[in-house]
Amino acid sequence: MQTLWEKKFSNQARRMKSSVIREILKHSSAPNVISFAGGLPAPEVFPLEAFKEASQLILEEAGAVSLQYSITEGFIPLRQMIADYSEQFGIQADLANIQITTGSQQALDFLGRLFISPGDKIVVESPTYLGALQAWDSYGVEYLTVPMDEQGMRTDLLEDVLKQDPKFIYVVPNFQNPSGVTMSLERRLHLVELADRYGVPIVEDDPYGKLRYRGEPIPPVMVVDREYRQITSREYTGNVIYLSTFSKLLAPGIRVAWMIADKIVIAKVVQAKQAADLHTSTYNQMVAYEVARDGFLDEYNKVIRETYAERLDVMLAALEEYFPPGVSWTRPEGGMFLWVVLPEGLDATELLPKAVEQRVAFVPGGPFHPDGSGPNTMRLNFSNASPENIRIGIERLGKLLRDGLG
Amino acid sequence: MQTLWEKKFSNQARRMKSSVIREILKHSSAPNVISFAGGLPAPEVFPLEAFKEASQLILEEAGAVSLQYSITEGFIPLRQMIADYSEQFGIQADLANIQITTGSQQALDFLGRLFISPGDKIVVESPTYLGALQAWDSYGVEYLTVPMDEQGMRTDLLEDVLKQDPKFIYVVPNFQNPSGVTMSLERRLHLVELADRYGVPIVEDDPYGKLRYRGEPIPPVMVVDREYRQITSREYTGNVIYLSTFSKLLAPGIRVAWMIADKIVIAKVVQAKQAADLHTSTYNQMVAYEVARDGFLDEYNKVIRETYAERLDVMLAALEEYFPPGVSWTRPEGGMFLWVVLPEGLDATELLPKAVEQRVAFVPGGPFHPDGSGPNTMRLNFSNASPENIRIGIERLGKLLRDGLG
Repeated sequence: MQTLWEKKFSNQARRMKSSVIREILKHSSAPNVISFAGGLPAPEVFPLEAFKEASQLILEEAGAVSLQYSITEGFIPLRQMIADYSEQFGIQADLANIQITTGSQQALDFLGRLFISPGDKIVVESPTYLGALQAWDSYGVEYLTVPMDEQGMRTDLLEDVLKQDPKFIYVVPNFQNPSGVTMSLERRLHLVELADRYGVPIVEDDPYGKLRYRGEPIPPVMVVDREYRQITSREYTGNVIYLSTFSKLLAPGIRVAWMIADKIVIAKVVQAKQAADLHTSTYNQMVAYEVARDGFLDEYNKVIRETYAERLDVMLAALEEYFPPGVSWTRPEGGMFLWVVLPEGLDATELLPKAVEQRVAFVPGGPFHPDGSGPNTMRLNFSNASPENIRIGIERLGKLLRDGLG
Repeated sequence: MQTLWEKKFSNQARRMKSSVIREILKHSSAPNVISFAGGLPAPEVFPLEAFKEASQLILEEAGAVSLQYSITEGFIPLRQMIADYSEQFGIQADLANIQITTGSQQALDFLGRLFISPGDKIVVESPTYLGALQAWDSYGVEYLTVPMDEQGMRTDLLEDVLKQDPKFIYVVPNFQNPSGVTMSLERRLHLVELADRYGVPIVEDDPYGKLRYRGEPIPPVMVVDREYRQITSREYTGNVIYLSTFSKLLAPGIRVAWMIADKIVIAKVVQAKQAADLHTSTYNQMVAYEVARDGFLDEYNKVIRETYAERLDVMLAALEEYFPPGVSWTRPEGGMFLWVVLPEGLDATELLPKAVEQRVAFVPGGPFHPDGSGPNTMRLNFSNASPENIRIGIERLGKLLRDGLG
């Protein structure tokens, strides 16, 4: 008989959906379309030479070890380097606090696996990162949303949702994807206090923290939590699970990221990872270590920051010039995205096909809101297109908006 | 307050356990221990030069594309090559039937995600692959076991368990891990017929199919199914989900494997993979393609087969020489493992610490039996240790067994 696959699928499989963004990207990848839709780093500045040297050196010197199975926790010198690197912004961690993951998407999936049983609640910012929603949807989660303003999550509205006993609070405090907004120090402290009072862990997703183009760095929530708890050991025993990645610091195609957390959490993640993919590619971990070591990460960071800062400035100037009155946008101090709010009543999803016709693409903001709000919002990426194309693309989009509003 | 992590964990997390094998490997990795415990390929013959050339070429010619995000389904030329390669043993598949995974372990995890809701049943051989059990345990599965003999799964006992409406049947038909046994053609046909009659899909895990050292190849279950169904299109629309990997054909440290299945299954796997890790490393997929292309896979396969065939022969000869009467073992025609049965009443788990004291390690067979049977069995890997060390290790183990039985 013909296999009735749909009838065989699990409850979890039935809850899976295709990523809206990925479906949109398919349409926006036509050759003449200027795309602000993806979240791609600028390929022009990828450190190809450094990767060439490192990949040769690893195959020469580590040899067969780099192509063999390896431990689930991750390559020890790489985890040591991540520990040292994280100290730059005040994070202290033992090796037992650090787990290598196959991209941060895997870390998000593991958080779903570890904490979410069907019907469980978690707290997210509104809007929030779409990839996180996609990771957690299939676990049968219920989202409790807290709105944002220009200071980040409205922590004055957090206490109410914490009373509903959520499993964790998810925040992207630096240059948030999608909004570009950074959470103020005051809000971080308030978040840490409330989370502690209600016994709810915090997940701090920080892929963009080092991509700051202006203004002063704010301590990670993990550091605020460490101080709040007066943790004096190097070992981290606090309430925050911290995620970061080489995807934005080196290159996303190698899929190497990390999680820092209490070792009870890491021990459970190790079990999840043994079942999920045994370990992250030995070769990629060793190559990433070889590329990143001896200060290269900081050196290369200057290149990225210069490149993206220029693109952000060009986009902000073009928005001023071409976008009609009644449309507003955020002015991020770093990261890769800014956020546009159209007048009430306009629907960015309906606008998208017309934009693609005019050879420019963006991501409608609706899907970033698990509560179904935000139809009149859109996310613009400024890291991937060239400065010239950013001007042209914003001009095209501005014309469309003026026509739509006129 | 101190975070009570254990209280936060999900139902799925509570079902997770550490891999018994991984825990054992920790103890057996002391410098003087000859280990037959792992499942590691021989590092001495890893194609390091080919990887060096390929990694340079990819960074030169594909450049930034190799370090960028890429599509979830996998690198198209690699999938095309896998389609062509699979035709060698009769498998026909469209690109839409092929998904790249981050190692076969990820494919096993996806099968759990796609098909297993808590309380669902699946059918496995007894003994079966431990990594599969680990992938599926956390999904709350119930195992229905079918014993094996020297022809593979006892399909005469399969019908009874199929009446319990399992989600799928899992088989490792070639040189099974752990037993080394190959399923006969007659049994494959019987399996295909019964699975069809009861509408139960088959998962065919085939990491070792190309590691045949003697005897004639037997068509994959997927091919038997295609013929049984008289599928004439190139597209595969049958009842089998087929898994294979570069881990044993090139190197495991790059974590590149594949799944071939009906495109309804692949479409669901794409959704799972978007949530799990977005895509397998672009760089590794391109490097694997570059290494494997133009017949290298077949050329290198000769090297592996020569190396492993010698090690298998040395181990079989040493077993004859050193193991006492009353102990029996399988004589595989390929793969990486053979299986030892000790006299009833002996417990291989109790033997292990004594073996490690004598500087030799193996994996006790008990954990490979989800029904708790097989305490008097053990798995021996013959691909990783050198021929000299295989002789010495088997001599040590033989002495221990003679002492234990004497």
